[in-house]
Amino acid sequence: MKKDSFVLRGGIVYSKNLNEIEAYDGGYLVCEDGSCKGAFPVLLEKYKDLPLIDFGDMLIMPGMTDLHVHAPQYTFRGIGMDEELLTWLNKYTFPEEAKYKDIEYAKKAYDHFSEDLRRSFTTRAVVYGTIHNEATTALMEKLEKTGIISFVGKVNMDRNGSAGLQESSAAESLKATEEWLEAIAGRFKNTKPILTPRFIPSCSDELMRGLGELAKEKGLRIQSHLSENKAECAWVKELVPSSSCYANAYELFGAMGSNEFPSIMAHCVYSGEEEISILKKHGAFVAHCADSNMNLSSGIAPVRKFLDAGINVGLGTDVAAGSSMNLLKTVLITIQASKMYYRLVDNSAKPLSFEEAFYLATMGGGKYFGKVGTFQEGYEFDAVVIDDSLMKSMRDMSVRERIERICYNDSDAFIVEKYVRGKKIYTRTR
Amino acid sequence: MKKDSFVLRGGIVYSKNLNEIEAYDGGYLVCEDGSCKGAFPVLLEKYKDLPLIDFGDMLIMPGMTDLHVHAPQYTFRGIGMDEELLTWLNKYTFPEEAKYKDIEYAKKAYDHFSEDLRRSFTTRAVVYGTIHNEATTALMEKLEKTGIISFVGKVNMDRNGSAGLQESSAAESLKATEEWLEAIAGRFKNTKPILTPRFIPSCSDELMRGLGELAKEKGLRIQSHLSENKAECAWVKELVPSSSCYANAYELFGAMGSNEFPSIMAHCVYSGEEEISILKKHGAFVAHCADSNMNLSSGIAPVRKFLDAGINVGLGTDVAAGSSMNLLKTVLITIQASKMYYRLVDNSAKPLSFEEAFYLATMGGGKYFGKVGTFQEGYEFDAVVIDDSLMKSMRDMSVRERIERICYNDSDAFIVEKYVRGKKIYTRTR
Repeated sequence: MKKDSFVLRGGIVYSKNLNEIEAYDGGYLVCEDGSCKGAFPVLLEKYKDLPLIDFGDMLIMPGMTDLHVHAPQYTFRGIGMDEELLTWLNKYTFPEEAKYKDIEYAKKAYDHFSEDLRRSFTTRAVVYGTIHNEATTALMEKLEKTGIISFVGKVNMDRNGSAGLQESSAAESLKATEEWLEAIAGRFKNTKPILTPRFIPSCSDELMRGLGELAKEKGLRIQSHLSENKAECAWVKELVPSSSCYANAYELFGAMGSNEFPSIMAHCVYSGEEEISILKKHGAFVAHCADSNMNLSSGIAPVRKFLDAGINVGLGTDVAAGSSMNLLKTVLITIQASKMYYRLVDNSAKPLSFEEAFYLATMGGGKYFGKVGTFQEGYEFDAVVIDDSLMKSMRDMSVRERIERICYNDSDAFIVEKYVRGKKIYTRTR
Repeated sequence: MKKDSFVLRGGIVYSKNLNEIEAYDGGYLVCEDGSCKGAFPVLLEKYKDLPLIDFGDMLIMPGMTDLHVHAPQYTFRGIGMDEELLTWLNKYTFPEEAKYKDIEYAKKAYDHFSEDLRRSFTTRAVVYGTIHNEATTALMEKLEKTGIISFVGKVNMDRNGSAGLQESSAAESLKATEEWLEAIAGRFKNTKPILTPRFIPSCSDELMRGLGELAKEKGLRIQSHLSENKAECAWVKELVPSSSCYANAYELFGAMGSNEFPSIMAHCVYSGEEEISILKKHGAFVAHCADSNMNLSSGIAPVRKFLDAGINVGLGTDVAAGSSMNLLKTVLITIQASKMYYRLVDNSAKPLSFEEAFYLATMGGGKYFGKVGTFQEGYEFDAVVIDDSLMKSMRDMSVRERIERICYNDSDAFIVEKYVRGKKIYTRTR
């Protein structure tokens, strides 16, 4: 028998597409060799010899993808939400990230981050480290051990940082990046590097151009921030006066990626029509971070416009501007944000349905990793088994209703097991 | 020794006023005869003979007040958030509330509600039942057993309900209300009746006027809904054409309450200047329900204006338009809503600080119950002991930081014990 092959039984729920959720009460979910063979209301004859794990009434959903999370900021999650972006960076973020020069501090902090990510609903993540090579490599080592599949970036910053958090020149930043890539080459199976210019204000033209070239030369992807905050957007226009919009600034430096090596751009709160067409042209992924955008008073991204334009969209928790790595909560806040956008900004932008928000957290972000984020045949087998039995009900709730309820109300939803590519990486211990 | 007298030791945190939180790491909180004698960094000599319970590093905060929650709707919490208010009422709410005619259904459903409220951060609640006397009395019996202190209302509706959920006339509704008041008279210590006209569209002029008179005659308080949704506001203007604003409609019928018997008006999303002055004049409490107002795409209430006007404001979860009875989560969403109001509606309305939102959830709503919601001397002793030890940290977090962190990020905050007026009403069992 092939390894990592088995059948899970339970209340199975997953996206068919952006607008439809499929659900089976007492359904069967088949994993063969780490790949999903589909979910079925009745177990097919050909799978009857596979080992079956029966989770009874528990829910089984695809693992979720966090497209944007800052590992070093996990230490100050949930505090210091009283400022807007640029002040928040200088007051809370840069001083904290500077501490990761100390590898012992970094190791302990990244232990916390990795362990909490392991016991979250997330199976795939795209992660920022800091500018420090050693600390970022330690983060990759720890993430690799969790079994979660991730991209991790050593951050590049050669301007507008703080005394303790800035590289001395574009050349030094590029050299450090190449050294980091060499140091980790071939070491990890599940943890890949991604180039990570923090954002235009942190990176000189020369650095940004160098990273664009490095990405093409080595076939690497790029992640960065885009149009998060009004003051930031105005600053970028000053810093790159020849750019026609913020995304065009990345484009000018060859740092917007391609369909083959798509970039992730976090936020896009103030992306207008031109920016949307640039995102589309390069096959970029928008990491929509509604929790963060509310916490830092940034605003609300026009997600409906991105979807209508056919842009790739996934969700990011954006810890620590987002306060939690819990993507169920992010789904709730994403829906609420889209309703407030509809109500307060643009009455023609239909709010996101639950189906759409659930899709974004699973298939939408999962697409960045390939065939990931659903239980359709041929997708990689990432699954989370959830016990919601403490949530009392007056009638038999459908599996579809129960998955919605735990996104709105997750206090009584406990992860029992978590699988990535068919391997169990977490089991509840209490 | 007086009964209900003891000292709790732990990380103590409470509001001094709207803008200041007091916190003691390893502090002492004194309860004598169910009343708070204050919190202290060092135990005063005169309290050294009281029994001391040492909670070590755990947090101890005042119990929270939920100013607006619909008990019968708890059965469909977290599902059906795809509609706006008036459609949502007809599609989900009225059909569910109609079921409470069946007392066995009601008893079981209210068991769930009461038990989950008992294990929440809430120690005081103002609760809607349904139009059914028997079910509402059963709800009061169950709430009384929890030890939580509450107001509970039998709902009045004599128009615009549904086939299964409407009283046949104003007279019948008033008669049922008097019968309910008689049936429960003197039966409960902690559970008081409150008159509960659902909202203007549900109550004829005659019914509303009758309830206003009944309130005055019996010294009862009134709770209702106010200016939640634009279509609702327009409808009220049609239904009561002589009213100058929605609050004035209540005022015309003598149903706005008084400083002595203040009413609670939930939502107030669309309350303008005149309405604010009416709320102020009658000493009314605004139950601010940010979670609900986002879920039903209602909008965001101008809380800053209410506070500036000196109006009483507390928070409501508004289950089931709000999805959870967890007031920590309501604090988070309240802050986010105020930031989006600032960003998208009125740039002169400063967002709520954490201090302000925490105050609203504790002292703000607590004021409706008298001296409730803080650990200052002379307040009733409502306290919640919280274990947040699963939240890993890289440094000693202050108690003030930890209370903020669990509001933003409550997945790892567990209630260990809960006290109301000095009586322990909940102990963690697992």
